[in-house]
Amino acid sequence: MRPGGEAAERSAGEVAERRGRVLLSMIADAVDPEVASRLQHVGAVRVCAEVLGGTSSLRRAAAYRARAQALDVDAAIDQALSGLAAIGGRLLIPGDAEWPAGLDDLELRAPYTLWVRGGFDLADLNLSISLAVVGARAATQYGEHVATQIAADLAGRSWVIVSGGAYGIDAAAHRGAVAVGGPTIAVLANGVDQVYPQGNAQLLARVLERGAIVSELPPGRHPTRQGFLARNRIIAALAGGTLVVEAALRSGSASTVARAVELGREVMAVPGPVTSAMSTGTHALLRDGATLVTGADDVAEAMGGMAIVADATTESIPTDRDQLGTQQLALLDAFPARSTIDEVRLSVRSGLDVGTTTKVLGRLSLEGWVERQPNGWCLGERARLS
Amino acid sequence: MRPGGEAAERSAGEVAERRGRVLLSMIADAVDPEVASRLQHVGAVRVCAEVLGGTSSLRRAAAYRARAQALDVDAAIDQALSGLAAIGGRLLIPGDAEWPAGLDDLELRAPYTLWVRGGFDLADLNLSISLAVVGARAATQYGEHVATQIAADLAGRSWVIVSGGAYGIDAAAHRGAVAVGGPTIAVLANGVDQVYPQGNAQLLARVLERGAIVSELPPGRHPTRQGFLARNRIIAALAGGTLVVEAALRSGSASTVARAVELGREVMAVPGPVTSAMSTGTHALLRDGATLVTGADDVAEAMGGMAIVADATTESIPTDRDQLGTQQLALLDAFPARSTIDEVRLSVRSGLDVGTTTKVLGRLSLEGWVERQPNGWCLGERARLS
Repeated sequence: MRPGGEAAERSAGEVAERRGRVLLSMIADAVDPEVASRLQHVGAVRVCAEVLGGTSSLRRAAAYRARAQALDVDAAIDQALSGLAAIGGRLLIPGDAEWPAGLDDLELRAPYTLWVRGGFDLADLNLSISLAVVGARAATQYGEHVATQIAADLAGRSWVIVSGGAYGIDAAAHRGAVAVGGPTIAVLANGVDQVYPQGNAQLLARVLERGAIVSELPPGRHPTRQGFLARNRIIAALAGGTLVVEAALRSGSASTVARAVELGREVMAVPGPVTSAMSTGTHALLRDGATLVTGADDVAEAMGGMAIVADATTESIPTDRDQLGTQQLALLDAFPARSTIDEVRLSVRSGLDVGTTTKVLGRLSLEGWVERQPNGWCLGERARLS
Repeated sequence: MRPGGEAAERSAGEVAERRGRVLLSMIADAVDPEVASRLQHVGAVRVCAEVLGGTSSLRRAAAYRARAQALDVDAAIDQALSGLAAIGGRLLIPGDAEWPAGLDDLELRAPYTLWVRGGFDLADLNLSISLAVVGARAATQYGEHVATQIAADLAGRSWVIVSGGAYGIDAAAHRGAVAVGGPTIAVLANGVDQVYPQGNAQLLARVLERGAIVSELPPGRHPTRQGFLARNRIIAALAGGTLVVEAALRSGSASTVARAVELGREVMAVPGPVTSAMSTGTHALLRDGATLVTGADDVAEAMGGMAIVADATTESIPTDRDQLGTQQLALLDAFPARSTIDEVRLSVRSGLDVGTTTKVLGRLSLEGWVERQPNGWCLGERARLS
C-alpha cells in the first residue's frame, strides 16, 4: 500500500467519520479516555454532534463545545485537510491500513488522528526492531555521540529510530539514522506543517526523505508544555523499546519512560560519568531496573535478539535468484526492504491469492529467502544478499 | 587493647603455635583448604611436624616439605619475626584479639597469619562501615577522581577504606582516605617490609600513620601473580562491601568481586562513559546485578544506611557531659572514636563489670550518647559532638 492510496475509495460515511476525528483533534484534550471510550461506542460523527449540540455527557463537554464555537467548524476542518494536502501529508485514523499497530496498545489514550508526512509507510513499523531514543535537549557531547552511534548502528541493521525531533539527544538520534540512510520517525508536539525547533529544519527535511514526521495535532498547532508530555506516549508506543541516553534527574524523558513501562515496552538507559548532571537521570533509571546498554548490540539483546539473527554470518548461502519461479519472485518483490509484512498484505501486493502466498512462503522460508518473525514475515539473509 | 599488647603473656605452647603458623605462611600455598582444616583439628605445631617428618597426608605435603627443606626452619622463623619487630610490625593469628572478624568468614580459605604495620587496631574494623575500593591500575583521570572522592567522603564519616596499595584506583582510594585523616588499610601481595610499588612509597607511609598495611605473607616476600589473586580474598573479607570504580572487561577486580559475592558482601560498581574501555568491566558488573553507585551516599544506602544514621542532623541534641555520672563517663571514654565495640571489651576497657556495662549502655543509648549497631556499640551523635 502506498501512503494515501485508498483515499479515493472512501464512502461518504467514512469521510464524515474522518472529519469528526479531525474536529476532535482540534477541540478535545489529547488524552481524554472518556472521549476515546465514546468514540469506540458511537463513532466520531455522533461524539461531535453531541458535543456541538450540548447533549454530550463528557465531563469536559462544555470546554470542548466552547472551543468548537470559537471555530467555523467545517471551514476549520477543510483548512486543516487542505493545509495537509498542500504539504503532501496524509491523515490516518484507527482502522487505516497505515495506522501503526503500536498505537493501539495505548487503548483509551490512543490519539484520535495521526497527521503524517514522509516516505515511510508506518504500517511497516515492527515493534521488535524499532527503538525510541530520548533524552536531554541540553545533552553533552558525550550523550550526542552515543545517541548518534547507537541510532546509526541500529538503522544500519534495518531498525527504525523514533524520537521527538528536539535539540540534543533527539536530533543526535535522528542524525545517526539518516546518516546511514535508515528511516527515522520524528513525533512532534506541533502540527506537521510547523518546523520546530527551527534549528532542526534541515535535519527534519532529511527525516522526511526516507522516514516520517508525525503528530496527533492538526496543521497550524504550536507546541505547548502539555503537548510535549502527551506526545511522549506516542513516541513510547511507536517503538518496542525506549532508550534514554542522557537525562537530568527531573526530565521530560521520565514521562516517556513511564509510558513505555505502562505499555510493557523495554526500557533501557545509557550510563555515563557520575560527575555529569546529564547522567543523573539515566543512573536513577538504571537503579530502578532499566536495562544498562552501552551500544547497539546491547539494545538488540535487550529487545530479544531479533537483530542478532538478521546480523548472523551467511557466507555459505547461495544467492542465485535464477532458480526461483515467477510466483516466488513475485512474492519476494512484494516484501518491504527492512520490515515485516503479513500474509494478507503480501497476497495483495504480489497478486497471488492467500493460499498460494502461504504455500510459496513455506518453500521460500525453507530455502532461506524469507524468515518468519513474531510479527509477520521479513526477507532472509539470502534475499538481502542477492 | 593496644596492638601487640598481649605478647608478654603468651605461654610456650602459644608461642610454638604462632611459630608453626609462621612456617606455614612460608611453605604452604596461601589458599589450601586441606591445611586450614588440619589446622583446625590438630593445630599448627602438629601440622608442621607432620609435613617436616614426611608423615602428612596433605595432597601438597611433598611440595611443602621440599620448601621447608630449602630453609633453616627455626632461623627463618626467627628472621621473619625479628624483621617484623624491626619495622614495628605485629603478627596476628586467629584467636588474637586484634584478628579481624571478617577474615573468619573466609573459613577454610582464611589466611594462616596476618602481618600488620600501622596505628589502626584491626579489631575496630566494622563490616557495616568499611568499604573495599578496587579497580584498574591503568585507571583514567575520571576513575581516580571518583575513587578519591568516594573514599574521602566515606572516611570523613568514620568509614574505613580497604584497598590493595596499587597504582590507579587503589592509590586514589587510599589517597582520599588519608586526605581527610581517615584510617585506610592497604592489603599487600608482598611482605609488609617491602614497599611495592615504589611509586606509592610516600602514600603507604601516610597510610601507616592512622591506618594499616597488612599481608598474609611473611617479611621478605615479593609479589607474584598468584599472590595478587589470593590477596584479593582478604580485601573482600575485611570490608562489608566491595566497590569497583573502573575495570576493564577482564581484570583483577573480577576476582575480588567473586570473593565478595562468595562472602555475601555487597558488590557495587561506578558507571562511566560507555566510550571508555576502563568502564566496560563495571558496566558488565552492573548488568550482572552489582548495585550502581554514584557517590558515598549511594554506598551508605547500599550497605544498609548505617552511615546515614551517623550523618543525620542533630542540632537539637544537648551535648553537656556534666550531667553524666562517673560510670557513664568511664564507659564513654572506653569507646573507640570511630568504630563499634562489644560489651565484653567495653567492660574490660572501662573497668565496669559486664552487668553494669549493659545497664549503663541502655541508659546512655536512650539519651543518644551511644548507638547499638549490628556489630556492637558505637558512640552516638551526642558523644561525638561533645
